[in-house]
Amino acid sequence: MQEFNVQGMTCGHCVRAVTHAVQALDPGAVVEVDLAAAKVRVQSQQPAAAIAAAIKEEGYGVS
Amino acid sequence: MQEFNVQGMTCGHCVRAVTHAVQALDPGAVVEVDLAAAKVRVQSQQPAAAIAAAIKEEGYGVS
Repeated sequence: MQEFNVQGMTCGHCVRAVTHAVQALDPGAVVEVDLAAAKVRVQSQQPAAAIAAAIKEEGYGVS
Repeated sequence: MQEFNVQGMTCGHCVRAVTHAVQALDPGAVVEVDLAAAKVRVQSQQPAAAIAAAIKEEGYGVS
């Protein structure tokens, strides 16, 4: 399980945008978004840098 | 020009969702969303009740 702090997610659309961005990279990824905590947890074999890049491309900050 | 107070819009996805919902009802509608002010202004021949209903169906409060 990889965990990312993601800034800028505000609503259900954002949850879907982030989830779909990660699953576009890895269709088998399990993605959990915790809006309140601004955290995204991902189960995937993809490297963290690639996942972070996919989330950033949606316009969110990742740290 | 009709103006609606719309609660729950938080981000660009919400702007698009509201805009598309109104334009699904009236493809020629001009829709301006002011996120900060929580206002949606619509130029359309559709009645206000129908526009409000379309926005509510997206999950937003309309007053």
